[in-house]
Amino acid sequence: MSFRPLHDRVVVRRVDSEEKTSGGIIIPDTAKEKPSEGVIVSVGPGARDEDGKHITPDVKANDRVLFGKWSGTEVKIDGEDLLIMKESDIMGVIEG
Amino acid sequence: MSFRPLHDRVVVRRVDSEEKTSGGIIIPDTAKEKPSEGVIVSVGPGARDEDGKHITPDVKANDRVLFGKWSGTEVKIDGEDLLIMKESDIMGVIEG
Amino acid sequence: MSFRPLHDRVVVRRVDSEEKTSGGIIIPDTAKEKPSEGVIVSVGPGARDEDGKHITPDVKANDRVLFGKWSGTEVKIDGEDLLIMKESDIMGVIEG
Amino acid sequence: MSFRPLHDRVVVRRVDSEEKTSGGIIIPDTAKEKPSEGVIVSVGPGARDEDGKHITPDVKANDRVLFGKWSGTEVKIDGEDLLIMKESDIMGVIEG
Amino acid sequence: MSFRPLHDRVVVRRVDSEEKTSGGIIIPDTAKEKPSEGVIVSVGPGARDEDGKHITPDVKANDRVLFGKWSGTEVKIDGEDLLIMKESDIMGVIEG
Amino acid sequence: MSFRPLHDRVVVRRVDSEEKTSGGIIIPDTAKEKPSEGVIVSVGPGARDEDGKHITPDVKANDRVLFGKWSGTEVKIDGEDLLIMKESDIMGVIEG
Amino acid sequence: MSFRPLHDRVVVRRVDSEEKTSGGIIIPDTAKEKPSEGVIVSVGPGARDEDGKHITPDVKANDRVLFGKWSGTEVKIDGEDLLIMKESDIMGVIEG
Repeated sequence: MSFRPLHDRVVVRRVDSEEKTSGGIIIPDTAKEKPSEGVIVSVGPGARDEDGKHITPDVKANDRVLFGKWSGTEVKIDGEDLLIMKESDIMGVIEG
Repeated sequence: MSFRPLHDRVVVRRVDSEEKTSGGIIIPDTAKEKPSEGVIVSVGPGARDEDGKHITPDVKANDRVLFGKWSGTEVKIDGEDLLIMKESDIMGVIEG
Repeated sequence: MSFRPLHDRVVVRRVDSEEKTSGGIIIPDTAKEKPSEGVIVSVGPGARDEDGKHITPDVKANDRVLFGKWSGTEVKIDGEDLLIMKESDIMGVIEG
Repeated sequence: MSFRPLHDRVVVRRVDSEEKTSGGIIIPDTAKEKPSEGVIVSVGPGARDEDGKHITPDVKANDRVLFGKWSGTEVKIDGEDLLIMKESDIMGVIEG
Repeated sequence: MSFRPLHDRVVVRRVDSEEKTSGGIIIPDTAKEKPSEGVIVSVGPGARDEDGKHITPDVKANDRVLFGKWSGTEVKIDGEDLLIMKESDIMGVIEG
Repeated sequence: MSFRPLHDRVVVRRVDSEEKTSGGIIIPDTAKEKPSEGVIVSVGPGARDEDGKHITPDVKANDRVLFGKWSGTEVKIDGEDLLIMKESDIMGVIEG
Repeated sequence: MSFRPLHDRVVVRRVDSEEKTSGGIIIPDTAKEKPSEGVIVSVGPGARDEDGKHITPDVKANDRVLFGKWSGTEVKIDGEDLLIMKESDIMGVIEG
């Protein structure tokens, strides 16, 4: 069983704190609006432009991303806690 | 007697809790905004783009979907409780 | 004497409760936002797209429709109570 | 002396109550937002579309119209009380 | 010294009350939102459409106009009190 | 060292009061929203239209302009107090 | 490890006060909304126009920029405190 997001939605697996620390990206506790780290699980076909065509999203499955702490809706798919959010909630991709 | 939704509206049959549990998708009670599970009954012709043409919806009848818990308007058609909502309220399709 | 609605407005005759029950569509009293049932009396030429052209409405006279309970403005034309509302207030068409 | 409205504005002469009753259109006192009846005096060139061209208005001088009770700005031109409002405040035209 | 308005702005000289009364246009004191009368002094090149081109304004210098009472910003140019406002604040032109 | 504004931003040097008085433009103290006088120092490439192309601004360096009193952000560049604001905050150009 | 911003986001390294003073740009303490100085670290592919194409950003890596004091979200990448913000939060580029 899998979940296919619609429109410009993406499914994200939140990365837990231990892994985050070891990965070299640390979110300071004092930041006024702290982003969270996660991994893209699946990506929708993209929003539609004015002619109704899909705009290809800028992220793909397995991308390691930062997103706003309060972004997305929590769901449990096949026993795993995941987040459904909009691609525009993704701030960028951690590479290397 | 049937109901033909207009514009980008869809008709959804909410799936009850027992079926939901057995289906493998569990919505955690602690989620701040919990999505609901349902099945698409019928789909409107789609919203219109800037030239007035219909944009084909991304869902079809019998799709198993997640949608925002408070989405839609309740109606009873031929004795069955259904929901009329916008396609954009549908977060994605459960497959497999 | 007749009334020709402008833009994307439609004129709707609200269907009374007895007729509604016999028609098989029952609006549950407990719904948080209950739609009403009615019949389209007349339809405007449609809203205009970005080039100023009319977009043909998706409903026509005599269509049996559901609309938001609080939609529209009440008028009395030739002694009959009618509602003037926007086409987008119409949720869909009851057929068959 | 005359007044030429700009953009999508129209000048409307409100029809008084006696005339309204005899005309067959009665606005019920209990309506939550009662439209008023009037006659179009003059019409502006229309709003502009995205290319800056005028969109021809859907009403013309002498059209008998319904409009929102609180629509428009009152002016006195040549001793006559008139209303300046937007064409979109006009709900429709009474014909026949 | 002169003042060249930008974009869709116009410069307006407010007409004083005595002249207004003699001109045949009387603004009733009881109106909820009373327009003012003035004369266009100068006109900007117009707002820009989606392609960045200027849209020719619908008023020209010396036009006698009505505008919303609270429209515009007061300035004194060469000792004269004038108003800078947007063309869309102009309701229409008094002619003849 | 210089400062190159981005998008539709302009850099403005506020003209002090003495110069303003001698220049013939007097801003009345009683005006509800008094514009200020200044000189354009530098101009950005302009906002972008729907196709992503720059729209050439309507002001250029050394233009003497009026702008809203509270417009812009104060900065000190090379020891001089300047204002960064949007071109749309500029009401017009004083000429001659 | 690096961070690739998405859409029209940029990553900015805030320049500390000492460097700022020596650089000749001084932000007055009395300014109502003081901009900050920084250096661009990386730039996203740009926002998308109506056809879904990327609009090339107006800044590039190593540009010395001013931005709104409260703009952006703080992150720590490889032990360095950085800011993720939108390109439109960048007011301009300091050159020379």
